Amino acid sequence: MRHNQVLLGHGSGGKLSHDLITNIFIKYFNNPILKQQTDSALLNIENQHIAYTTDSYVVDPIFFPGGNIGKIAVAGTVNDLAVSGAKPLYLSTGFIIEEGFPLKYLEIIVKSMADEAEKAGVLIVTGDTKVVDKGKCDKVFINTSGIGVLNEKLLDISSGVNIGIGDKIIINGRIADHGMAILSARNELNIRSTIESDCACLNHLISAVVDSGINVKFMRDATRGGLATVLSELASGKNYGLSIDEAGLIVSEPVKGMCEILGFDPMYVANEGKVVMIVDEKDARSTIKLMNDNPLGREASIIGEIVGEHPGKGWITTGIGGKRIIDMLAGEQLPRIC
Amino acid sequence: MRHNQVLLGHGSGGKLSHDLITNIFIKYFNNPILKQQTDSALLNIENQHIAYTTDSYVVDPIFFPGGNIGKIAVAGTVNDLAVSGAKPLYLSTGFIIEEGFPLKYLEIIVKSMADEAEKAGVLIVTGDTKVVDKGKCDKVFINTSGIGVLNEKLLDISSGVNIGIGDKIIINGRIADHGMAILSARNELNIRSTIESDCACLNHLISAVVDSGINVKFMRDATRGGLATVLSELASGKNYGLSIDEAGLIVSEPVKGMCEILGFDPMYVANEGKVVMIVDEKDARSTIKLMNDNPLGREASIIGEIVGEHPGKGWITTGIGGKRIIDMLAGEQLPRIC
Repeated sequence: MRHNQVLLGHGSGGKLSHDLITNIFIKYFNNPILKQQTDSALLNIENQHIAYTTDSYVVDPIFFPGGNIGKIAVAGTVNDLAVSGAKPLYLSTGFIIEEGFPLKYLEIIVKSMADEAEKAGVLIVTGDTKVVDKGKCDKVFINTSGIGVLNEKLLDISSGVNIGIGDKIIINGRIADHGMAILSARNELNIRSTIESDCACLNHLISAVVDSGINVKFMRDATRGGLATVLSELASGKNYGLSIDEAGLIVSEPVKGMCEILGFDPMYVANEGKVVMIVDEKDARSTIKLMNDNPLGREASIIGEIVGEHPGKGWITTGIGGKRIIDMLAGEQLPRIC
Repeated sequence: MRHNQVLLGHGSGGKLSHDLITNIFIKYFNNPILKQQTDSALLNIENQHIAYTTDSYVVDPIFFPGGNIGKIAVAGTVNDLAVSGAKPLYLSTGFIIEEGFPLKYLEIIVKSMADEAEKAGVLIVTGDTKVVDKGKCDKVFINTSGIGVLNEKLLDISSGVNIGIGDKIIINGRIADHGMAILSARNELNIRSTIESDCACLNHLISAVVDSGINVKFMRDATRGGLATVLSELASGKNYGLSIDEAGLIVSEPVKGMCEILGFDPMYVANEGKVVMIVDEKDARSTIKLMNDNPLGREASIIGEIVGEHPGKGWITTGIGGKRIIDMLAGEQLPRIC
């Protein structure tokens, strides 16, 4: 590259754009489909049922312990496809970059995206870059969209219709790491911690369970709004209730401490590598075991079950035996968490 | 809606997000797939060959004569699919909104997207909203991605491999309207004009030609970088040359005047509703006629032909008989044009 910083011309569609595409995007997102450099990527889909999703990422700061905006942009979209019952295949990516952004940072971010895509087994096949004048955006925002092929057994996985009383609610590990890692990475609070984001692609962990033949009845990733939001959305309007036992939830000591100091409830803090899965009681142990075999599921645990009581609501039993309702987050707990 | 402005909480994934999704996005992008409100849209694709594209839109100002950021976000992505030889079917959309942005503006933008999607016959099936603190983005940025089913006859449409000497180069009307409309809509130049953006979905115009049986050998929309960029990219590395006759190019008087005053070449100014098509000489007249039947092609004209001379280059013969090479734009001519 002939420059150290992103210039407005890098978003022009002209020569500088071509330099950027060739020297950064194609260099790292190296695949024959992207290399065609056509207006649209041309894809072969092996199945007529596909899943399609999008998310924009505006996380602040863009680099944080455990990841960066590029890693999260790939993992978040891969996870949305995976929890929808699809095998993630292809991603698109759209960059909005602030004029003057250091190209070396862009390169680190793009390389993270490429690494994460490789781990997940997906290809980044089409993209776009816009550059806005200094002060008109905050460093870099990334949109990814994704396409996956649906597993025909999992067409109802997001609806919760297959859930029955007695089913077990499982999560693949500790909660609230991502939100607290981001918060402590922001200089404003003057907090130092060792907390790392859990940001990761969950598709292989999920397929290990699904492909084993276990009848997974529901899946969702617990991102913005945390575990509580997944549970309250799931319960809403249903003729069953969710009973969560706080004792089953793993929260690391540094995260617990930070949440206490700052007045956060870990149940509402964002994760970027956690999936909530619901399975039949008889399958719960084997699900945990399959998850444990994957580094992203070493701390998988049963956190609760489906009950006939309090239909439409989730309740949590706290360590001291109290009970409280799991409600949806009213406002914004932590802006720009992803 | 209980508020007049976009709040950080509207991007939280919590209750305010749900309000926004229900009261604005689902209200306008009204379709059963989006209404499922799952992490990913579940789609049936009738064909295993699909086209997939993405673009982020950061146009400034967000409202301009002839359109707004929402209209362009739909039309731009629909057009990228259409020129790739695909029938556009599904769009995703990701909003990044500045805290405090008036909800009534957001509603106008979303309604424009819905109107444009309806005209084009596409569904907006999945989406995402992020809100950033005031001053961290400029009003609103929109990403759209799109999926279309490929016409098997058009798999090579973007490559130019089917082009032969004597083929005619056609465009569906006047050039440079979009760029000059945006520029005059910016207050900074203190220019008043009647110029309107040509922003429009071209998929029906394109399918009228393609479905007639005419052998379309190449298509591309002339957006950022203008007509000149399409032509110089097409010529690059080829064993044929492009000969353009300036007399065939239509530039409206107000656009011509504004370009002259400001020192722009209309060939390099962005369009948002123009497609360059290359067909056999014998098909040129019928292509023009088919385009003329569509309001977006009333001024379609032949602007040049494929020649054996100057392989790999495009040349334009000017009105006064001079000749000059059509080169790629070096830097940014007009930032935030789309």
